[in-house]
This record gives sequence, structure tokens and C-alpha cells, in this order.
Amino acid sequence: MMGTQPARGMRDFLPDDVRRREYVVRIVREVYDRYGFEPLETPAVENIDTLVGRYGEEGNKLIFKILKRGEHEASGQADLALRYDLTVPLARVVAEHQAALPKFFKRYQIQPVWRAERPARGRFREFYQCDIDAIGSRSLMVEAEMCAAASDVLSRLGFRDFTIRLNHRALLAAMLRQAGIPESKHASVLVELDKLDKVGEGTVRTAVAELLGSVVPSDQIMALFLRLGALPADSSRNDKVLGEMRAFLGESGSAPVNELASLLQLTASTPAAGRVRLDPSLARGLSYYTGAIMEIAVPDLAGSLGGGGRYDNLIGTFLGRDIPACGFSLGLERILFVMEERKMFPDAVAGRNADVMVTLWNDGSQTDALALATSLRSAGVRVEVYPEADKLGKQFKYASSRGIPFVTVVGDDEKAAGTVSVKDLRSGTQETVLNADVADFVSKRLAL
Amino acid sequence: MMGTQPARGMRDFLPDDVRRREYVVRIVREVYDRYGFEPLETPAVENIDTLVGRYGEEGNKLIFKILKRGEHEASGQADLALRYDLTVPLARVVAEHQAALPKFFKRYQIQPVWRAERPARGRFREFYQCDIDAIGSRSLMVEAEMCAAASDVLSRLGFRDFTIRLNHRALLAAMLRQAGIPESKHASVLVELDKLDKVGEGTVRTAVAELLGSVVPSDQIMALFLRLGALPADSSRNDKVLGEMRAFLGESGSAPVNELASLLQLTASTPAAGRVRLDPSLARGLSYYTGAIMEIAVPDLAGSLGGGGRYDNLIGTFLGRDIPACGFSLGLERILFVMEERKMFPDAVAGRNADVMVTLWNDGSQTDALALATSLRSAGVRVEVYPEADKLGKQFKYASSRGIPFVTVVGDDEKAAGTVSVKDLRSGTQETVLNADVADFVSKRLAL
Repeated sequence: MMGTQPARGMRDFLPDDVRRREYVVRIVREVYDRYGFEPLETPAVENIDTLVGRYGEEGNKLIFKILKRGEHEASGQADLALRYDLTVPLARVVAEHQAALPKFFKRYQIQPVWRAERPARGRFREFYQCDIDAIGSRSLMVEAEMCAAASDVLSRLGFRDFTIRLNHRALLAAMLRQAGIPESKHASVLVELDKLDKVGEGTVRTAVAELLGSVVPSDQIMALFLRLGALPADSSRNDKVLGEMRAFLGESGSAPVNELASLLQLTASTPAAGRVRLDPSLARGLSYYTGAIMEIAVPDLAGSLGGGGRYDNLIGTFLGRDIPACGFSLGLERILFVMEERKMFPDAVAGRNADVMVTLWNDGSQTDALALATSLRSAGVRVEVYPEADKLGKQFKYASSRGIPFVTVVGDDEKAAGTVSVKDLRSGTQETVLNADVADFVSKRLAL
Repeated sequence: MMGTQPARGMRDFLPDDVRRREYVVRIVREVYDRYGFEPLETPAVENIDTLVGRYGEEGNKLIFKILKRGEHEASGQADLALRYDLTVPLARVVAEHQAALPKFFKRYQIQPVWRAERPARGRFREFYQCDIDAIGSRSLMVEAEMCAAASDVLSRLGFRDFTIRLNHRALLAAMLRQAGIPESKHASVLVELDKLDKVGEGTVRTAVAELLGSVVPSDQIMALFLRLGALPADSSRNDKVLGEMRAFLGESGSAPVNELASLLQLTASTPAAGRVRLDPSLARGLSYYTGAIMEIAVPDLAGSLGGGGRYDNLIGTFLGRDIPACGFSLGLERILFVMEERKMFPDAVAGRNADVMVTLWNDGSQTDALALATSLRSAGVRVEVYPEADKLGKQFKYASSRGIPFVTVVGDDEKAAGTVSVKDLRSGTQETVLNADVADFVSKRLAL
């Protein structure tokens, strides 16, 4: 006998799971539609060269690789790989279909991606991403619209407590350079600095000093981040962070600081108003970002609900000339996870499969049962037909266990009279209705 | 520079491609909902043992296999594989989640599958299937509902000329046994007999005789199929085929013949009425079918638009005890292909990405543009914001090229007056509207 579990780190989605996901996806689509984003889909499988080398050392190891066909199969050679994110395929699509796409191509894409990570609570090897990306403009309007759309989605889903952490790749680089930290240590030092509010000053100081060895003093960057950490969390915070940055960097960091200041101002007249929080420790792992970077935080989740940023050079690696781009990815599984924990789904989402169950009086009435079901369905009613001539009580019990509100019975008397008995299992009442009136009868009562 | 094409045999779906697909999927879902089917999704990736050996020799070769992680990667060992159809994963799910599922579990599943076939016109390595399956009953009501639901979908999509070819695995076996053809040759002989109306009697006779060698005379089966082929294509045909079968098989074939007769009668009171055509040469490749088998044909397509049948033993291979089941799969790509060839899509399906484009007066008006877009979007209007302060004429031209009907302009005068100029690019008319009234103004004109 075969194993029946899904592959490690992957999940089966039973009907109510799918319904919950579709509830979220419907809202995501609706919002993205309103922002002028268009749907795009790419294959689950890409040529291996399209993906390998895009996601850093660590990412390379997490790409699922597919064996080459035919005689090569035994050699272990892989020529294909599973999609790892939705951004690299988009860059490939933009390069491939340039002529067919508008100058400012804005697309959304809601598809699964696969990563061979060690499975853990809330971390899966197959998971959906919901990405928006805007191609073709360097304007900060684009970043502002990304923050606006993501905020709009989360607000419409019922999130009241999310924050968009905002930083800038050029600011990060300027800050660390100013502190005398060599380029090669930027990433690892940032990882440590980002832990400041979790593990405390002493631990971070030791870790940073260790990373930098005796060559570079870590005092300057530590002092800066301690000052930032001590700023009040109120509405004045962003301006104070900008002030600290200006003081620390002087002229050398003015470009990214000014961009962040503008972006804060632009988002203030969108649904992202009050959500954006400057966070100079935000780094985001992926190597392709070149400008502003964003990440969404909620208090009760260690990871983020999504994130994104500007990446002006990625498309160029496919196309041979750069096209500016900026994107934002919502993590659907994380959103679902938090929504379930917090019971944020409307009751109606996990629904019954039918409005009416047509019972089967006996084996001779199969044709009549199907005819009744057909007429109800053409009127838009959702109908389950009980497939076997079990005792009526058993059939009623089944409908009840499935949460189906109405059952129909056509016994010999009803058949002779051209009528149908309709029982409302919620109230227990039963009425006899003319054959032609059943759909209308049920629809009216369902609408109540 | 990287290659930019999708992997061989796979496709990128640009916005209008996705919109066409979603149009079809929406109708498929709506119909399946009305039949009481519930949504299910399974992972794209399965343990390799779940799939290998399920689809015959030929199928095994077409399964995409995924390299095992870590130190095994170099060895070429594969432990995972890409989903090859939606039926085997369903059987696994039913065995795994038995306790959580209703006695009569009816699910639909609309997801891609992957097969390493040689790509050809209309044949891809990644394609969507839309499956319905009903688990838990041996009643022919189930088969009838499958035919009804598939017919309902196709009719609602606008197909007027499809036929459901119907046969029965037990009838096939009885027929070939009766003709003295050994079990081992059944499949190959059927392949030849199925070509009778395409390549003619002589070619088929030679091929069948060659297959059977000198041991078994092929005259009897040839004669039967020639008689069947000569039957009139009118509404009396099904009864005549049943008569031929009864005469040829006698008592030995009465069970499947009676089932087919009943099924014809049941489908007559559903949307499949007049669609079902008995076809004793229909074999269907997959090895797991045990009862009735169906396949949808349209005149201008060599392959089928979908097919299915009863498979009462498959779930048992996962569960250890048999659970009856019957399913039907619609081939989404084939449906889309034929619909495109025949221009069956409503014009509105390939749509514009926005109702209104908010132009940008100058760099200083970015905030105002975003505020206007925000207010329009919260009223449900789809808004594109032009991200750069290009000349107004260029911005208008862009909106026009994108098929966006309205553009808004907020120049210095409008800003001072708290108004917005709204231009209808279709008529060329322009009106000045109070800021607060723009959403209403546009919505009313869009509804016209």
C-alpha cells in the first residue's frame, strides 16, 4: 500500500482551506485591479540558468532542480527548475515580450513558488506569493503606489495594526561606508544590528565587534543604532530618523535620505498614510534591490507579511539594457496564517457545498431526480443529488450533516400531482410546491 | 546575457491570455458549484512513489522528476515528481483525509499538470486540467451527473456541436474476449479499430491481422466494427448500437450493456440530453478505469476536449480497501484553443487595465495625483496613475493607447478651484467636475 501524505513541507487544501484562500485572493485581485495592475502568469518550471545565481548562495541551494529527460536522466543532470519567486520570471517576461507590453507595465501575479527550506510551523516548501510590480519608471510615485496597494489589501482584509518598514539600499550602503565598515561585511553586520531590539545592546555589540575584528571600530555604527532605537515610537519618529541620518551622513547620504523623505510625503495621501515607518536596519535578503526597500510587519508574527523594493538592474541582465522596476510581494500563507490565528474570516467563507439536496425516492425515480436537479441548477441554485435510494431518514441526516438547508422529496403522491415536497432542515417546516415553482420557492427563502 | 524564453513546451500568459483563461475558469467553477462539487487543491509536487507506475509505461517516461536535496543531488536520485494528472493526487487525498471528508465527496480541482511530451501545436508540457470527481457511490447517477456537468459547462461557454462518446471498460473486454482476442492484445487492437473511419477498412484489417498473427482470426471483430460504422448517425443510432452489442455478446455482456442503456436514459433528463453517443471503439488510455468511460469530441479538433470514467479500484491502492469513484476532466487548453480559433470570447474579456488615468501636471503635483487616485479607488474605480510629469499630450496618448476611456487633469486653475477636468477620450469631450464628485461622474458614464 502506498503512502498517502503529501510531500514533505507541502499541503493538501481541503474545500474550506481553498475557500479561505480564495476569499483572500479575491480581495487581493480586486484591489490590484483598482490600481491598474494586470494579471500575468508564468510557468512553474523555468530553464535552470534563468534561476540559478539569482538568489545568492543560500537561495541557490533551495532551488528544486528537475532532471533532464531521456538518456541524461541517469546522469543526474538538471536542465529545469521550479519557480523560486515571481520577480525573476517577470524580468524574463519583460525582456522576452518587450514589444507587446506597454511602456509602464504594471502586473500582478498570484502563483505558487517552491523552496527546499526546512519545513517549520508556518513555513512551507510550496507557497503562494501575490506580487505587484511596476516596470518602466524611476518615479517615486511607483514606490508610493506599491505601499498604497499593499496597505489597501491589508486594510480590506481587516488588518488594523500593520506597519510598512521602509529603508533604502543606497542609505544602508552610505551608512555602513561612513562608519568605516568594508563592503564585504555590510550584510552580516546588518543582520546583527537588526536584532538590537530583540537581544539587547551587549549581545549585538559583541557580535558586531567579532564580525569586524580589530580592524574597524564598531562604536560609531553601534552608537547610531542605539540612538535610533531610543527614538520615540510616535508620529514624530520618521522626521527624527531623517534628522539622525542627515547628521550622520552629511552630504554623502543626501540623495537616498531625500528620496525617503519624499516617499513618506507621497504615501501620506494614500491608504498607506500613517503606516510607513523608517527603519534604517531593514536590509532584505535578496541581492537585486537597488533603491527603496519595504517590509510589512505585524506585532504577532516574527517574519513579515510581505515586502519589496526597487530593482533597476535585474531586467537588464536579461535584456542587455536596464529598465527600472519596483515590486511588492504579499506572502499569502503568512496572511492566511495570521487571519486564522486571529479569526478574521467572515463566517460565510467556510461554506456549504449546496443549497438544496434532491433526495432519491427509489431506484425508479432517478430520472425524475436528475430532471428536478437540472431545472433548479438552470435557475442558479446549487444542488446536491443524493445518489442512492437509501432510507429517507438517512438521506435527510446526510443533508443535515453537510449543512445543506433544503431537501426535496418526490414520492408517489407528489409525482402524481406534479409537485415537490420541500423541507427546510433549519426550521423543520415542510411545504408542497408545484414542480415549476421549486427554484423560485427555494431562491426566495435563501435570500432571506 | 540570459535567455529570455520560457522553458520548452511551456508558455507565459500575458494579461489578455490570463483574462481569457479566467473567463473560462469562472464559468467552469460556477457550473461545478451548482452541481455541489467543492474546491480542492493539492501540491504541484508529489512523492515520486505516488506517481510512478500509475500511468502505464508511456506515462512513466513523461513524469518530470525532481532531484533529491543535499548530498544526494550529485547522484541523480529523484525523490519527488511533478503532478501528472489530478486523479491520482485525489485518490491519495481521499485515503489521507478520509475522516474529514463526507461519504459522497464531490470535488472540483483546477490546477496545472506537467508532462514531458514532445511539444506540438496545441500540446504543451504544462497545462491546466479542470477535474470533477465523485467519491463513494457506485450509482449510475454519478456518471449521469458527470456528463450533465461537463455538458453544462460547454453549453454555457457557447459550444453547440460537441458529443460525449460513451463506452464501458467491461463491454470492451467482453467484446474482444468474445472475438477470441487474447487480453494482451486488447489495447493495441482497439487502437487500430478506433481508426476505422479515418484510414479505411483495408488498412485497419491489415493492421489487426498483423497484430493477431495467424493464431486468431480477426474477421469477427472486423465485421462487428464495420456493422457499427455503417449505422446511421441519427437519433436511433444508440439503440441500434445497443442491439448490435446484445446480439454479439449474448448473456456474457449483458451487465455493461444494461448499464450503458440506463446511463443513456438518465442523461436524457440533464443538459447532456442529445449529446451522448455510444462508441464501442472508445478505449481511453489510462489503466485505472473500471466502468463507464467518456470522452468529449468536437468536429474541428483531432483530440478530445475532455474525458473521464469510473475507477473503483484506484483509491484502494492507497487506502487498502476500495472506494468507488468516477471522474471527468476538461482540458482547459484545448477548450481555450478551440474557443480562440472560433472567436467565441465576448469582446469585453480582453479588457483595459483601468477606467481612468490620472495625469501628472508637474513634479509638485504628485501628492495631489495620488490623493485623487485614492479617492477614486475607494469608490471602486480602476485607476492608473501616470508616474512621470511628461507633456500632457504624451500622457493622453498613452492613456489612449492603453484603451483607458477617461483621463483627469488637475492644473493650477483646477487646483485653486478644487476641481478636476475629466476628459472622455472616446468622445473628446471635457468637463470640469468638483473634486468630491469625480468618482460619481466617472462611474455613471462607465455604466452607460
